[in-house]
Amino acid sequence: MSLPFSPGEYARRLGLVRREMDARGLQALFLSDPSNMAWLTGYDGWSFYVPQGVIVPAAGDPFWWGRGMDAPGAARTTWLPAERILAYADGYVMADDRHPMQDLAARIADLGLTTAAIGVEMDAYYYTAAAHRTLSEALPAAKLRDATGLVNRHRGVKSAEELVFMRRAAAIAERVVSGAIERARPGLAKNELVAAILADQALGADGHWGDYPAIVPMLPSGADAAAAHLTWDGAPLRAGEATFFELAGCYRRYHVPLCRTVMLGRMPPEMQRAEAALVAALEAGIAAARPGALARDVALAVAAPLEAAGIDRQARCGYPVGLSYPPDWGERTISLRESDHGVLQAGMTFHLMPGLWMDGWGIEITETILIRDGAPAEPLCHLPRRVVTKA
Amino acid sequence: MSLPFSPGEYARRLGLVRREMDARGLQALFLSDPSNMAWLTGYDGWSFYVPQGVIVPAAGDPFWWGRGMDAPGAARTTWLPAERILAYADGYVMADDRHPMQDLAARIADLGLTTAAIGVEMDAYYYTAAAHRTLSEALPAAKLRDATGLVNRHRGVKSAEELVFMRRAAAIAERVVSGAIERARPGLAKNELVAAILADQALGADGHWGDYPAIVPMLPSGADAAAAHLTWDGAPLRAGEATFFELAGCYRRYHVPLCRTVMLGRMPPEMQRAEAALVAALEAGIAAARPGALARDVALAVAAPLEAAGIDRQARCGYPVGLSYPPDWGERTISLRESDHGVLQAGMTFHLMPGLWMDGWGIEITETILIRDGAPAEPLCHLPRRVVTKA
Repeated sequence: MSLPFSPGEYARRLGLVRREMDARGLQALFLSDPSNMAWLTGYDGWSFYVPQGVIVPAAGDPFWWGRGMDAPGAARTTWLPAERILAYADGYVMADDRHPMQDLAARIADLGLTTAAIGVEMDAYYYTAAAHRTLSEALPAAKLRDATGLVNRHRGVKSAEELVFMRRAAAIAERVVSGAIERARPGLAKNELVAAILADQALGADGHWGDYPAIVPMLPSGADAAAAHLTWDGAPLRAGEATFFELAGCYRRYHVPLCRTVMLGRMPPEMQRAEAALVAALEAGIAAARPGALARDVALAVAAPLEAAGIDRQARCGYPVGLSYPPDWGERTISLRESDHGVLQAGMTFHLMPGLWMDGWGIEITETILIRDGAPAEPLCHLPRRVVTKA
Repeated sequence: MSLPFSPGEYARRLGLVRREMDARGLQALFLSDPSNMAWLTGYDGWSFYVPQGVIVPAAGDPFWWGRGMDAPGAARTTWLPAERILAYADGYVMADDRHPMQDLAARIADLGLTTAAIGVEMDAYYYTAAAHRTLSEALPAAKLRDATGLVNRHRGVKSAEELVFMRRAAAIAERVVSGAIERARPGLAKNELVAAILADQALGADGHWGDYPAIVPMLPSGADAAAAHLTWDGAPLRAGEATFFELAGCYRRYHVPLCRTVMLGRMPPEMQRAEAALVAALEAGIAAARPGALARDVALAVAAPLEAAGIDRQARCGYPVGLSYPPDWGERTISLRESDHGVLQAGMTFHLMPGLWMDGWGIEITETILIRDGAPAEPLCHLPRRVVTKA
């Protein structure tokens, strides 16, 4: 068994969460976001398709709670002692007449928390409406309070140990995107290119193995690139079409997304103008992304060169990244947009991502950046910031 | 634009859902399970990390509803006319002060359904507690009723068109599992083997491209194989250890899972006994899986040879499979276990999956089977049912 991080790192994280629980008057916290579970305990397994979670009491070690067949995985991947691993019987799984949250309620009662104020992640993936209703009905005297984002916000600033992982992920991202660009040619079937990308993601880089990114490769071409989240098919890359690669490197669940665009042929003038504006927008965003700046400051900096080129993006231009599980590699806290007054801090990492999904075509050139003291943000990858044209 | 299925197939599906809505007195249905969205409309995109859904009114075409940047993807992948594609503004995404379900409520009001009985999928992935609370508060006079599984149950029996896809997925599964078995050797790093598996999954088979399975490859070895859902790392395969491959082939979102086990060296006697019992259990399950049989009948048939060998499995031994999106390739309806009285019908497809997660080791030999009239179930793949030993 090899935990990703030191005992001190996990203690730091638990301390941050406990202080926040105290400040909010919570006697316990139930985390169902797999990223929050992993960040706090180390738990790592593809078991989030059934109800599971981590219970953080006011004192003492947290509890892992999940399906019986996954308890051995919890014992092997977390720092928790065996008696803090709680399993429910398999008959609760996807049954019509019972729900795993009934078992959770009984465990919470065993802990003497039937009337406690308990934080739950109301808007976390995998915390369904039925899960919440079942828990509420089984613990009628408990005060279930929304703690969505409570842990996520503390994940924003990366520790030195986490930044080591982010840099390994960045090396994988560079390799993956470079490989995709090198392989792209007219006639190559999209799924064949994806096969190579997926392989590169798992192979890793610099001697570090690659983990699965929380989002599969996206590489739409031509008119499909006007749609943001289409996955691949078996159609060939075509001369005269642009393809963008929206990919990430992932090291032990830490993500560095990186996007680049390949044009098989000459760029039309409107794409060239968009490319120039996009590169200027990225540079402006990187320069503005400093400790103390607001998310809106970065968004406004990014928007200016684009608007000068007549491009009015509606979507946010970035989001924090780090530890994550499917279906999203973002942290779901700050969004880089004009309406967000979140404050940037040194150690935060963002995917600066002003994708251009235009009418009938699209290009993406992005960077994952590290906020640092006394300097513009540091891009973690080092690929040229341009649309790569290939004959 | 190429829809996976014929217009008649989509009309058949909508008809099934409408009849069920009538029977339950529902004036509308809001589907948020991406598998149900795709089954009914064709929608296919990795956008389920933000709120989205399909609204099925009592008459007329359904509506796709989702984030603005995903509306072009809906236009390109569904059979819905442009005016049935409804988009919410990007400012709703992951914001503290608003929620996309407020926009959905406004759309439902526009349709004159503020006091209607509306089915929602309370326990579907991605239908969070916060989503339901927001919708409920914004539509206080609507009667939101639980419709979890309403559509899933109609997906159980596969049409002739769907079976074509399942057979293509089966061919991919065979190729993927065969390739993994062939490549396994002492010293090979787990992530290098995964790289080849992921590539094979995307390459497809028999000229049909491979789609992404809803679950990443799992291939635990030795003591890790006692834990059901651990993903890979960079450790090498070792002589003397068994590794099981839990993999699927996926063709246009249709899944055929298939598991086999490789032993690098000689099997210890307890593993040989377990293998023999497991193969007998599979044969018994396949023989029992006929139209009219209950899920419990198959479970009891599978359990008997295992219990005779002293193996008492607690977990269900199978589940229906077909169209799916992460995080699960099952249909979440019937479970093959003693307490489930679900009735098998011709055209249903199940992953018959009595995985053995023992104390310190594990083996898996499984089949995806098609229930058919007048005969035992048909295994869709044709790999030898045994633990493959390699020197």
